[in-house]
Amino acid sequence: MKASISSFGVDRRVLLSALAVLPTLSGPLLTASAQAQTATSGAALPSWNEGPAKQAIVDFVRTTTDRASPTFVPPEERIAAFDQDGTLWVEHPMYSQVMYCLDRVPAVAAKKPELKNAEPFKTVLSGNREAMAKFTMKDLEMILAATLTGMSVDEFNAEVMKWLETAKDPRWKRPYTELVYQPMLEVLLYLRDNGYKTYIVTGGGQDFVRVYSERVYGIPPEQVVGSMGGTKLGYDKDGKAFLTKEPKLLLNDDHAGKPEGIHMMIGRRPYAAFGNSVGDQQMLEWTGAGTGARLKVLLLHNDATREYAYGPAQGLPNSKVGTFTPALYDEATKNSWTVISMKNDWKRIFSFD
Amino acid sequence: MKASISSFGVDRRVLLSALAVLPTLSGPLLTASAQAQTATSGAALPSWNEGPAKQAIVDFVRTTTDRASPTFVPPEERIAAFDQDGTLWVEHPMYSQVMYCLDRVPAVAAKKPELKNAEPFKTVLSGNREAMAKFTMKDLEMILAATLTGMSVDEFNAEVMKWLETAKDPRWKRPYTELVYQPMLEVLLYLRDNGYKTYIVTGGGQDFVRVYSERVYGIPPEQVVGSMGGTKLGYDKDGKAFLTKEPKLLLNDDHAGKPEGIHMMIGRRPYAAFGNSVGDQQMLEWTGAGTGARLKVLLLHNDATREYAYGPAQGLPNSKVGTFTPALYDEATKNSWTVISMKNDWKRIFSFD
Repeated sequence: MKASISSFGVDRRVLLSALAVLPTLSGPLLTASAQAQTATSGAALPSWNEGPAKQAIVDFVRTTTDRASPTFVPPEERIAAFDQDGTLWVEHPMYSQVMYCLDRVPAVAAKKPELKNAEPFKTVLSGNREAMAKFTMKDLEMILAATLTGMSVDEFNAEVMKWLETAKDPRWKRPYTELVYQPMLEVLLYLRDNGYKTYIVTGGGQDFVRVYSERVYGIPPEQVVGSMGGTKLGYDKDGKAFLTKEPKLLLNDDHAGKPEGIHMMIGRRPYAAFGNSVGDQQMLEWTGAGTGARLKVLLLHNDATREYAYGPAQGLPNSKVGTFTPALYDEATKNSWTVISMKNDWKRIFSFD
Repeated sequence: MKASISSFGVDRRVLLSALAVLPTLSGPLLTASAQAQTATSGAALPSWNEGPAKQAIVDFVRTTTDRASPTFVPPEERIAAFDQDGTLWVEHPMYSQVMYCLDRVPAVAAKKPELKNAEPFKTVLSGNREAMAKFTMKDLEMILAATLTGMSVDEFNAEVMKWLETAKDPRWKRPYTELVYQPMLEVLLYLRDNGYKTYIVTGGGQDFVRVYSERVYGIPPEQVVGSMGGTKLGYDKDGKAFLTKEPKLLLNDDHAGKPEGIHMMIGRRPYAAFGNSVGDQQMLEWTGAGTGARLKVLLLHNDATREYAYGPAQGLPNSKVGTFTPALYDEATKNSWTVISMKNDWKRIFSFD
């Protein structure tokens, strides 16, 4: 996901087109409430239809965990990397982290009243999304800096946690953390059950994703690789040390930044990598350049009914979120990467389906 | 350890004073060859004498792992951080990574002949340590940049691995990787046996330490936090992606950089932190600022016979390696940090003692 060019890992064009398209969305409210099933009971990958995608995943696990296999991988080297937005959960109509930043503006402005009449905050407070769609890159960076930095790490975590409890996706009217793809949760569990360490490798903010990664994906904070901002050590009035989030980008974890971030955070090349856009391309290429069996997977959003159709499947023409380009599709085909068809390979999309 | 101020995590004064003192060292060659014992057999911490330091470690583990304890810590939150140089292995007379860089100069100059007559490489090639002691910061950075960057990650790993097999400490005439403190290996194992994830948090180069951390300490690459340099993705003639180490410092993991590095790499505050110098001070302060039971430990090098005596114990007056200052000792006392007396608390120093 995410063709990010700004210093906060958010592509301006993506944001603007998403802002423009947001008010036009009015999908059905799904009322199903089936309990989430886990892959631990019964066969692995129960939400997957039989087909080449499921087969590729199962074959990969077998060939890398069977000690008799020539491509056996020792347990300590079993690393699997997953993009988040558009790969593990819904990225339309807008990255949830950007929704968080916009939603935080009133609280930030309440603490700093001078922002109320200053752009771009004034426009955000007005709720005028057409005006927001005209924001410059500098406007966007000001909003991200004001809402993602300047507070202690503990305060930030508490704010994100609170937001996640109340914020809802505009189409499903559910918390964002429920809009995770059930078949992908099953892949995470299946890999972990087979000795793989599962990592999120996201262009989104590392600290943002860490707040819910353990609860939502079973992935602990130390296994979240994302765009990383600096922190600064300080001391409170009692002399206690604390960290403040600084408006300084250390690594933009997208495109070439993904292999670079993986090297920095993990220090090993993954054996499996899952993504859905050009932002994941280099991670899959680098994964594939390793020796032995390497699983490279792209998720194709081609289910306009149950989720969305975009990229090579064409849909949502106004949005550039999740840029799975025709060229990327060609590269996947040429290199025999696995392409998941959301429409054909998945029995259901969400746990509540 | 390591009061680093350069962009490669190495303090110039430390290096220079170490270079000056190096040729004067001629300690006894220990010939003992006792096999390393592990803490898994028999009682934990067999190389420790009974005393307040051992008791503090045992008490900490009991109070954080007993479910009936008010300071019980859930397994997923059990993080312990260890400085490396001077805390897990010998840092005198010079950090082994600096030895590596100096030893690499001939090979680098062979590939780039123009360096042979250019300073500071010419001086390094001459072997004149008194001249080396006059290097400027810029000289040192040139040496570090030439020997630690510019090659692929895989090439770097192979070079360090090869060096570790042949390089020897000048006093003990043993590979550096044998000069690890047996009592600290037992602490690592004891904590892991009790559900703690053990991390190295070093001012040294992250990629350097990762080469041997699993074999020497049982700590996998993804649990090594160190000074981090950038990498750059490229493609070879066959189109295969690879990473090149760049001369760009992303985080100087020393002093305040240690809590900042821990936050970036782990995303959780440790419950236990071990260090031996002012470079570890902020990590211990930040660890101590957390709620519940937190173990803060400093190692005092006061054993001139079996290892070295420096810092508050005074010794090696010409060297500033491992700056455990009187002020740090006072802070430790005031805040009831645990201070390990190498002389009194350890039955033996090395596995071969």
